[in-house]
Amino acid sequence: MNAEQLKALLTQVKNDDTSVEDALEQLKELPYHDLEYAKVDYHRELRNGFPEVIYSPGKSLGQIRGIVRDMLARTTGNILASRASEEVYEAIRELTPDAVYYKEARSVVVKREPYRVSEGTIAVVSAGTSDIPVAEEAAVTAEVMGNRVNRLYDVGVAGIHRLLDNVDVINHARVIIVVAGMEGALASVVGGLTDKPVVAVPTSIGYGANFGGVSALLGMLTSCAGGIGVVNIDNGFGAACLASKINQL
Amino acid sequence: MNAEQLKALLTQVKNDDTSVEDALEQLKELPYHDLEYAKVDYHRELRNGFPEVIYSPGKSLGQIRGIVRDMLARTTGNILASRASEEVYEAIRELTPDAVYYKEARSVVVKREPYRVSEGTIAVVSAGTSDIPVAEEAAVTAEVMGNRVNRLYDVGVAGIHRLLDNVDVINHARVIIVVAGMEGALASVVGGLTDKPVVAVPTSIGYGANFGGVSALLGMLTSCAGGIGVVNIDNGFGAACLASKINQL
Amino acid sequence: MNAEQLKALLTQVKNDDTSVEDALEQLKELPYHDLEYAKVDYHRELRNGFPEVIYSPGKSLGQIRGIVRDMLARTTGNILASRASEEVYEAIRELTPDAVYYKEARSVVVKREPYRVSEGTIAVVSAGTSDIPVAEEAAVTAEVMGNRVNRLYDVGVAGIHRLLDNVDVINHARVIIVVAGMEGALASVVGGLTDKPVVAVPTSIGYGANFGGVSALLGMLTSCAGGIGVVNIDNGFGAACLASKINQL
Amino acid sequence: MNAEQLKALLTQVKNDDTSVEDALEQLKELPYHDLEYAKVDYHRELRNGFPEVIYSPGKSLGQIRGIVRDMLARTTGNILASRASEEVYEAIRELTPDAVYYKEARSVVVKREPYRVSEGTIAVVSAGTSDIPVAEEAAVTAEVMGNRVNRLYDVGVAGIHRLLDNVDVINHARVIIVVAGMEGALASVVGGLTDKPVVAVPTSIGYGANFGGVSALLGMLTSCAGGIGVVNIDNGFGAACLASKINQL
Amino acid sequence: MNAEQLKALLTQVKNDDTSVEDALEQLKELPYHDLEYAKVDYHRELRNGFPEVIYSPGKSLGQIRGIVRDMLARTTGNILASRASEEVYEAIRELTPDAVYYKEARSVVVKREPYRVSEGTIAVVSAGTSDIPVAEEAAVTAEVMGNRVNRLYDVGVAGIHRLLDNVDVINHARVIIVVAGMEGALASVVGGLTDKPVVAVPTSIGYGANFGGVSALLGMLTSCAGGIGVVNIDNGFGAACLASKINQL
Amino acid sequence: MNAEQLKALLTQVKNDDTSVEDALEQLKELPYHDLEYAKVDYHRELRNGFPEVIYSPGKSLGQIRGIVRDMLARTTGNILASRASEEVYEAIRELTPDAVYYKEARSVVVKREPYRVSEGTIAVVSAGTSDIPVAEEAAVTAEVMGNRVNRLYDVGVAGIHRLLDNVDVINHARVIIVVAGMEGALASVVGGLTDKPVVAVPTSIGYGANFGGVSALLGMLTSCAGGIGVVNIDNGFGAACLASKINQL
Amino acid sequence: MNAEQLKALLTQVKNDDTSVEDALEQLKELPYHDLEYAKVDYHRELRNGFPEVIYSPGKSLGQIRGIVRDMLARTTGNILASRASEEVYEAIRELTPDAVYYKEARSVVVKREPYRVSEGTIAVVSAGTSDIPVAEEAAVTAEVMGNRVNRLYDVGVAGIHRLLDNVDVINHARVIIVVAGMEGALASVVGGLTDKPVVAVPTSIGYGANFGGVSALLGMLTSCAGGIGVVNIDNGFGAACLASKINQL
Amino acid sequence: MNAEQLKALLTQVKNDDTSVEDALEQLKELPYHDLEYAKVDYHRELRNGFPEVIYSPGKSLGQIRGIVRDMLARTTGNILASRASEEVYEAIRELTPDAVYYKEARSVVVKREPYRVSEGTIAVVSAGTSDIPVAEEAAVTAEVMGNRVNRLYDVGVAGIHRLLDNVDVINHARVIIVVAGMEGALASVVGGLTDKPVVAVPTSIGYGANFGGVSALLGMLTSCAGGIGVVNIDNGFGAACLASKINQL
Repeated sequence: MNAEQLKALLTQVKNDDTSVEDALEQLKELPYHDLEYAKVDYHRELRNGFPEVIYSPGKSLGQIRGIVRDMLARTTGNILASRASEEVYEAIRELTPDAVYYKEARSVVVKREPYRVSEGTIAVVSAGTSDIPVAEEAAVTAEVMGNRVNRLYDVGVAGIHRLLDNVDVINHARVIIVVAGMEGALASVVGGLTDKPVVAVPTSIGYGANFGGVSALLGMLTSCAGGIGVVNIDNGFGAACLASKINQL
Repeated sequence: MNAEQLKALLTQVKNDDTSVEDALEQLKELPYHDLEYAKVDYHRELRNGFPEVIYSPGKSLGQIRGIVRDMLARTTGNILASRASEEVYEAIRELTPDAVYYKEARSVVVKREPYRVSEGTIAVVSAGTSDIPVAEEAAVTAEVMGNRVNRLYDVGVAGIHRLLDNVDVINHARVIIVVAGMEGALASVVGGLTDKPVVAVPTSIGYGANFGGVSALLGMLTSCAGGIGVVNIDNGFGAACLASKINQL
Repeated sequence: MNAEQLKALLTQVKNDDTSVEDALEQLKELPYHDLEYAKVDYHRELRNGFPEVIYSPGKSLGQIRGIVRDMLARTTGNILASRASEEVYEAIRELTPDAVYYKEARSVVVKREPYRVSEGTIAVVSAGTSDIPVAEEAAVTAEVMGNRVNRLYDVGVAGIHRLLDNVDVINHARVIIVVAGMEGALASVVGGLTDKPVVAVPTSIGYGANFGGVSALLGMLTSCAGGIGVVNIDNGFGAACLASKINQL
Repeated sequence: MNAEQLKALLTQVKNDDTSVEDALEQLKELPYHDLEYAKVDYHRELRNGFPEVIYSPGKSLGQIRGIVRDMLARTTGNILASRASEEVYEAIRELTPDAVYYKEARSVVVKREPYRVSEGTIAVVSAGTSDIPVAEEAAVTAEVMGNRVNRLYDVGVAGIHRLLDNVDVINHARVIIVVAGMEGALASVVGGLTDKPVVAVPTSIGYGANFGGVSALLGMLTSCAGGIGVVNIDNGFGAACLASKINQL
Repeated sequence: MNAEQLKALLTQVKNDDTSVEDALEQLKELPYHDLEYAKVDYHRELRNGFPEVIYSPGKSLGQIRGIVRDMLARTTGNILASRASEEVYEAIRELTPDAVYYKEARSVVVKREPYRVSEGTIAVVSAGTSDIPVAEEAAVTAEVMGNRVNRLYDVGVAGIHRLLDNVDVINHARVIIVVAGMEGALASVVGGLTDKPVVAVPTSIGYGANFGGVSALLGMLTSCAGGIGVVNIDNGFGAACLASKINQL
Repeated sequence: MNAEQLKALLTQVKNDDTSVEDALEQLKELPYHDLEYAKVDYHRELRNGFPEVIYSPGKSLGQIRGIVRDMLARTTGNILASRASEEVYEAIRELTPDAVYYKEARSVVVKREPYRVSEGTIAVVSAGTSDIPVAEEAAVTAEVMGNRVNRLYDVGVAGIHRLLDNVDVINHARVIIVVAGMEGALASVVGGLTDKPVVAVPTSIGYGANFGGVSALLGMLTSCAGGIGVVNIDNGFGAACLASKINQL
Repeated sequence: MNAEQLKALLTQVKNDDTSVEDALEQLKELPYHDLEYAKVDYHRELRNGFPEVIYSPGKSLGQIRGIVRDMLARTTGNILASRASEEVYEAIRELTPDAVYYKEARSVVVKREPYRVSEGTIAVVSAGTSDIPVAEEAAVTAEVMGNRVNRLYDVGVAGIHRLLDNVDVINHARVIIVVAGMEGALASVVGGLTDKPVVAVPTSIGYGANFGGVSALLGMLTSCAGGIGVVNIDNGFGAACLASKINQL
Repeated sequence: MNAEQLKALLTQVKNDDTSVEDALEQLKELPYHDLEYAKVDYHRELRNGFPEVIYSPGKSLGQIRGIVRDMLARTTGNILASRASEEVYEAIRELTPDAVYYKEARSVVVKREPYRVSEGTIAVVSAGTSDIPVAEEAAVTAEVMGNRVNRLYDVGVAGIHRLLDNVDVINHARVIIVVAGMEGALASVVGGLTDKPVVAVPTSIGYGANFGGVSALLGMLTSCAGGIGVVNIDNGFGAACLASKINQL
C-alpha cells in the first residue's frame, strides 16, 4: 500500500465512505494465509510476478500437501513445487489430477491453465550432458512462468566449435541462462559473444577440486566477461526467476 | 560473421564482385588492434553493447597510456577506465583534456560525446555509507553506458523503515542494483519487494567473519528471495554492465 | 566452594566441629558420578541453572541407558536428551514411562515434574517451514528449562510483511530466538526492530553456497544490527540455554 | 506505529481531530534525517535502546563530521563513534569540546550528559594482554550505554588458577563478556563456571592457524559449554550492545 | 580450417570447382553428432589425439547407451568410458561383446583394435596400496591411448628406501605419473630425483585434515621440486591424457 | 647402512671376506617384501620402533589377507591393523586364532607375544563420552606398542572440576594424550597444568561450525599453552605412535 | 596443591600449627603478580618447566617494559621475549644490560645465568634457507630452556641426498624439530627415517596455494609417517617448548 | 650412482684399482656445497636438467650474494635468480657484470654463455595484459633453460576471436603454457583446441572471489579439457621448468 493508496483510504475514512473498522481491517489484513507451519504468501504474485513456489526439501509430505491444498482452494493459476522427489509428486497428485512431474527437472507443476508464452526467448545453454538436470529445472521453471525457451545442451568449451556453430541460438535470445559445472568457463565465453544479459548457474558436476560446485561458482563470479549475474550452485530455479523477470520487462 | 553474411560473401566471390584476396582479408581481418601487450578489442561494442573498458590494476601507466592513445585514434565514443587511481587519471589527462575523474567511483571517463539517456531507470541502492564507493562505481559506469540512474543510499536493513519509506525508488526502476557489505541482507529484502530484476553486489565492507566480502557474497547467493543475480565482491562495474544490458533490452 | 565457605569449613575443623577426614571428604568430594565412560555432572545445575543434558550423538544406546538410569536414581527433576533418534527414545522409555518424544525437535524429555513457567516470554521466530525442526529444538528445550515460549514460524524476509504484521510477538518477548537458514537475513531485520536481546541460530537449510549453514552463520555474525549473539549451526538447544539464562535473570 | 496507535490516529481523522494531511504526514514521516550519503536513524533509540552509533571505517572525515554535526543539532544525549582513528577524534573535537578519545578502545564519546549506571554489572573478562583493545572497546561501549562494568584481564586458560582465583568477579556479574584470541578456550571454561549469560568475542590475536580469529571464532561457536552467544571477531562493540540489552532487561 | 585451407576453398568456389552450397556445407559442417542431450565430438581425435571419452557420472544409462551406440556406428577405434560403475559396464556390454571392464580402474574399454604401443614408457608410481584405484585409472587410460606403462606401487616416502631401490623405473621412463594421497610428498621426492616431466595426481586417500584430497593437492602445487604438473584430485584419467600427450610428442 | 657399516663392508670386499656379489646383494637388498600391490616394510621396526601397521581403509580384504599372511610368515611379533571394520577382523581371524578385535578402538591385534610394559605411563584423557572411540584407538595402540596406559575419560572443560579432581592422573604420566572434539579446549587446560609433553588429538565430534573436527584442530594448533604437539583429526593411532616414542626414550 | 598437601595443611590447622588465617592465605595465595593489564604467572615454572615467556605482538612497549621490570624484580633466572621486534629489544635493554637480541630468531633473552645444557640433543632440521628464521626461533628457544641443539639447514626433499648424507644428525638426536614451508614433505621423510619423536613446524614460506603455510600444515598433519606432532605455522617457539619437555624427561 | 656404477666401483675396489678410502670418498661425496645457511646443490643439473635456481624471497641479500659467489666459483654456466627484486639484482651485479635484470619477469640471469635454442617451441599464451609479469617469468625462464619461446598475450576468452585468430601459434608449439587470472577459462579453451601438452599457470590477477588466484587455480584443475597440468598460482618459473622438460625430451 503506497502513499497514494493510503491517502485515498484516509479520505474515504474521513468521508465516512469507509468505516474505521474496515480501514483498520484493510491496513492490518494479512496478504498471506497462516497454516502455522507456513504462511502462504498470496501477495507475492503482485510483488514478484509469480505466485509463491513450494521449495520441497525439508518439508514433510503432510506440510506440502497442506500448502498445495491451500493454494488449490485460494488460487486458480498454476502451482510449482521445486526440488520435488517422486514422493512429493505422488502426494500432490493425490490432491489434483493436474499435477505433472518433470523428472529430470525435479519439478512438479499443477497445470490448471495454459502457459503464457512470452515474445522474447530465453536460451538455456548447458556445458555437458551431466548438467542437464539443472538446465531442465531452469527451462521448466521458465516455461511455467510464461517464457518461450530454447535449449542448447552439451556445448562445453573443450570443443568450442560446438558452441560457435550454434551461436545463433544465443543471438536470437533476449536472455541467456548458462549452466555449467567443472570450471564453468562456458559462461565467460558466452558472455564475450553476446550483448544480452547472461544468467550463470554453476553446477556441482565434477569432483575433487570442484568442491561441490565451488570451482564453477568462483569462475563465474570472476569471469573476465562483464554483464554476468550468478546464482547459487545448481539453482536452475533461481536462474529462471531472474531470466523471466528480465524477459518480461 | 554469421551464416547469412558468409553466404553473401561467398556469392560475391563467385560472381567476381569480391576478389579472393578481398574476401580472405574480410574473413581474416582481426577485429582488434594488436599493441603486443594488449589486443584492443574494437569489435566488443558490436558483440557486447559497449566498447572495451580499461581495467586498470596490474597495468603499467605506459600500457594504459598506449591503450588510451590507440582508442582515441581509432574511435570517437566515450572511454572508460575502471579501478583507476589518481595517477591513472593524470596519465590519461595528459593525452586528452576530456578526461574526467570520478574519485569516489575510482573511474576515469573520457567524455567525447554526451551520454545517451535511457528511458528506463536503474536504481542503485546501497546499505551503508561505507558502501558508497562501490555504489558510485556502479552508478557512474551505468551513466557512461547510457542509462538513467537513481541513487538510494544508506538504507540497510538494521533500520528497515528507511528502506520501506523509499520503496517507490525501487518500484519505479526497471532494474535494481543492490550494493551491500556485512551480511548483505538488503538484497533479500529488496528482492522480496519487487518484481524487477535485482543485481546484487557484495562489498568487502566489514571485518572479521566478513572475510573480505565473503559473508555478503554467500548471503546474496543463498538469498531466500528469487530472481537475484550476483556479481563479484566490490564489482560495481560488472553490476552496471549487467544492469545496463537489461535496461536497454 | 568459595572463600567464605572455605573459611567456615576451616574454622569448623579448627574447632573440632568437623573432623579432618570429613573436611577432606567435603573438599575432595566429586560433584559428579563416575560411570567410567561418563562423569555425570550433578553439580551443573548449581553452576549452570539446569541439570546436565544428554547429548545423544556418538553415545551408544547402552551408554545412554546407563546415564539415564544414573540420573533417575540420583535426581528427581526432569531429564533432557537432545539430538535423540527414535531408538534413543525407545531405549529411555524402557527405563521410565515418563519419557516423552518430541519428534520434530529430536528431543526426549523425562517429565517427572511439571515445567516451571517463567514470567517473561521467549519468542522463537523462524524464517521458513524447513527451519522448524531447529526452531522446535529451541522451543522444546526452552520449555523444559521453565520458560514461556511463543512461536512465530515462516516469516522470512522474502515476504517482509509477514514479519512486520507480527511484530507484536517480538515486542512482547523478553528474548528473541531467530532461526534461519539460507542467508539468515531474518536475524538482521529482527535485530533492527527490537531493543531486546536476540539469539540467532543459523540452520543448514539451503544448498550450494550455503555450505551446510555457513552462509547463514557468517551473515548473522556480520549482521549490521547490533546486539545479536550467535550460536552454532542448527544449535537450537544452545540458543535455548542462552535465552533461558537471559529470560530468568 | 502499532495497531493501537493506528486505530487512535484513524479515529482522530474520522472525528476531524486530525486532518488527512496531518495524518498522512505522521504516517509518512521519516524517523531519520537524510544527509544523502547517510540517513541518520533517530528512531533507533526507541527501537534498539541506544542511539545510532557511528561506525567509522569506510567513512570520510567529511561524512563523519556531517553526521556528528547533525546529531549534535538534533539530539541531546551522548554520541559514540566506534573503530575511530585519532584523526576521526580530531575531526569530532573540532565540532565539540565534549569529545573524549578512548585510545585503546578506539572509541570517541561525545559526553554531553553523565552516564547512567545500571544496577547489574557486566564483567569483561579477557584471556591475554594483547586482547585488551577489544576488551576495552566492549567495556567503554557498555559504560556509554549506561552499564556498570567490571574488568578482569589476562586470565587465559594456560594458567587456569588465575581465573579460578577471580571467580567471584564472574559470580557477581549479571552478564559476562569473554574476550579471547588464539583458541578462545576461555569462553568454554567461563561458560562452565556460571549460570549467567556469556557473550563471547573471538579476537584476531594469534597467527598462522589462527587465520585472523577463525580458530577462536570456531572454538566459541562449538563450545562444549551451553549458553554462549558469539559475536563477530574483534567485535567488542557488538558484545557490549548485546550485554547491555541483557543487563538492562 | 586454417587460412591455407580457406584460401584453397575460396579459390575452388571462384573456379566453380566447388559450388557455393558445397562450400557453405563445408564451412558450416558440424564436426560432431547431435544427440540432443549430447553432441558427440568426432573432431576431438584430430584436435586432441584421442577420441572423446565418455565421462560416466551424471549420465543416465540410457544416455550412455545412446552415446556408445553412436560411436560404434560412426567410428572404428577403441572407446573408453571413465568412472564407470558395474552397471555402466553391463549397459555397454549389451551393445557390444568387445567391452572389457577394468574394475579397479573403474574403466570400460570397448576394444575394437589392438592398442598401439609407444616407444617411450610412462611410469605410474603410487604412494600406498589404497591409491591403487586411481593409479590403475591412469595406467589403463594410458594403455588405451597407446602408451607403454610401467607400474611401481606402494613406495611412499615413509619408507624412502622402497623408492630409492626402484629409482631405475623412474630413470627409464619418459614421463612419470605420481599418485599419492595424504600429504602427497612422493611427488616432491620423485620430482627431485628426475629430469623427466612429472604429472602429479593427488588422491582423496586420508581423513581429517586431508579434506578429501586437499592436503595432497596443496602439497603437490607448492612442491619445492620444479617441473611438476598437477591434475585434479583422483583424476587418474586426466594425468594419463597429459602424460600420453607428452610421451607421444 | 651408515658410513661405518659401509667402510666395514668395503674392507671385507677388499680382503675377499665378502664377494662382490654378496656385497652387491647386501647393498641392493630390499628391506621389504614386494607383494606387487604392497611393499611390506620389514625394516620399519629398526627405523621406527614398531613394525609396519596395516592401515585398513582403501585396502580390499584380499589385500589385507595377503599382507597379514606375509607378516605371519616373516615375523614373530604382534601385528596391528588400524581402522579395521568387523569384516577386516573376520578376514584376519580366518588366518590366525590370535586375532583380537577391539571394537570401540576399531583395531585388530594379532597377539603372538605378550605386550611389553613400559615403566613410564601414558595418560589418555578425553573430553566427552563421544570421544571415547578415538581415545580407545590411542590407548589400544599404545598398549600394543608396549606402554602402560592410564585412561581418564569425560573430563571436558565445561565441568572443569572433573578435570581438576583427577589432576594426579596427569601428574603421574610421562606423556599425556588429550582427545577432544568440539572446541578442543581441554588440550589448552591440560597443557597449562603440566610440564609433561602433551599430544593433542582433535576429534570430529560436533556439528555445524565443527566442520568435521576443524574447530578442535585449529583450537589445539593455536593453543595459548606451549608444548602441545597436534596430530590429525581422529588420529588416535598417530597420537599413540608419538606418545610411545616419547615414553620409550 | 594436591590432596596430600591439603591433608597436611588441614592437620596443621587442626593441631594449631597453622592458624586459620595462614591456611587461608596459603589456600588463597595467588601464584602470579597482578599488573592489571597482565597477571605474570610465577607459578608456571613449577607447572610447565619454564618461566612465563613474553609473547610480544599486541603488547605495547610500556606493557612489555612493565612485565620485564616485574620479572627482573621477582625472579633470578633468564627471561625470554618471543616474536620481539628491534624496538622491543631496545625497550628491554633500557632496563637491563643482560638483554641479548637474536635477530634472525626475533627473540630477546635476558641472560642472567648460564644456560643449562641437557645431555640429549635436539636436532633442528630445516628445508630451505628461507625457513631459517623459524628454525632459529626454535633453536634459540630450546637453548634458553637448557637443551643442547644441533642445526641442520637447507636439506629439503627436492635434493634428497642432502638429507640422506646427514642422517647421523637425526640419528644422534633425542628429539627432532623439522621446519619446512611449501609442501612440508621433509617432515614425512624424516619421520620415516627415525624412531625418535618428531616435532614438525610448518612455515609460511611459499606463495599462492601455500596460503600462508596451510599447505605445509596440512601436509604435516596428514603425513604418511607416524609419530609426528605438529605445532602452529611459524611456531618455532612452541616446537622448542614441546621438544624441550621431551628432551628433559 | 646406480647399480651398474656401484658394481663397477666395487670391482675396482676388489681389484685394488680404487682404494677403500677413495671409494668411500666417492660414495660419501656430497654433491653440494655447504654454506651452512644453504647447501648449494651442484648435482641438480644431472638429476633435473638445469642447475639449482636461487629462489629469492626470504633470503637475505648476504645469503644471496654468498650463494651466487659460490656458484660463480664452481660452475661456468648461466645462473638464474627468480622472484628477484631490484635490490637482489644490484647485489648480484656487484659480483659480476654478466647479470641482466628482466624487470617484468622479476628475474636475474647471469649470462655467462649463450642460451641453447631448442628445436621445438614453447608457446606462452596469456589472458590479459595484467598477467604479463607471470607470463614473462615463464618466458624468460624457458629461454634461460634453452628453449625457443613464442609469446601470445592478451587473448582472453571474453573476446574469443583474438585467440581463434592466433591459433597457429598454438598449433606450431610443442608445449603450451597458458597464463590466466580471474576465472582462468583460457586454459580450458586452449586445451580443447590442441593435442599438445598444456601447462596452466593460474595468476592472482583479480579481486574479491578471485581469492588471490584460487578461482583460476580451481578452474584449471577442474577443466573440462583433458591433458592440462597445473602449477602453483603465479608460478611462471615452475611452468617453464615443466615445459622445458617436456620440450627437451
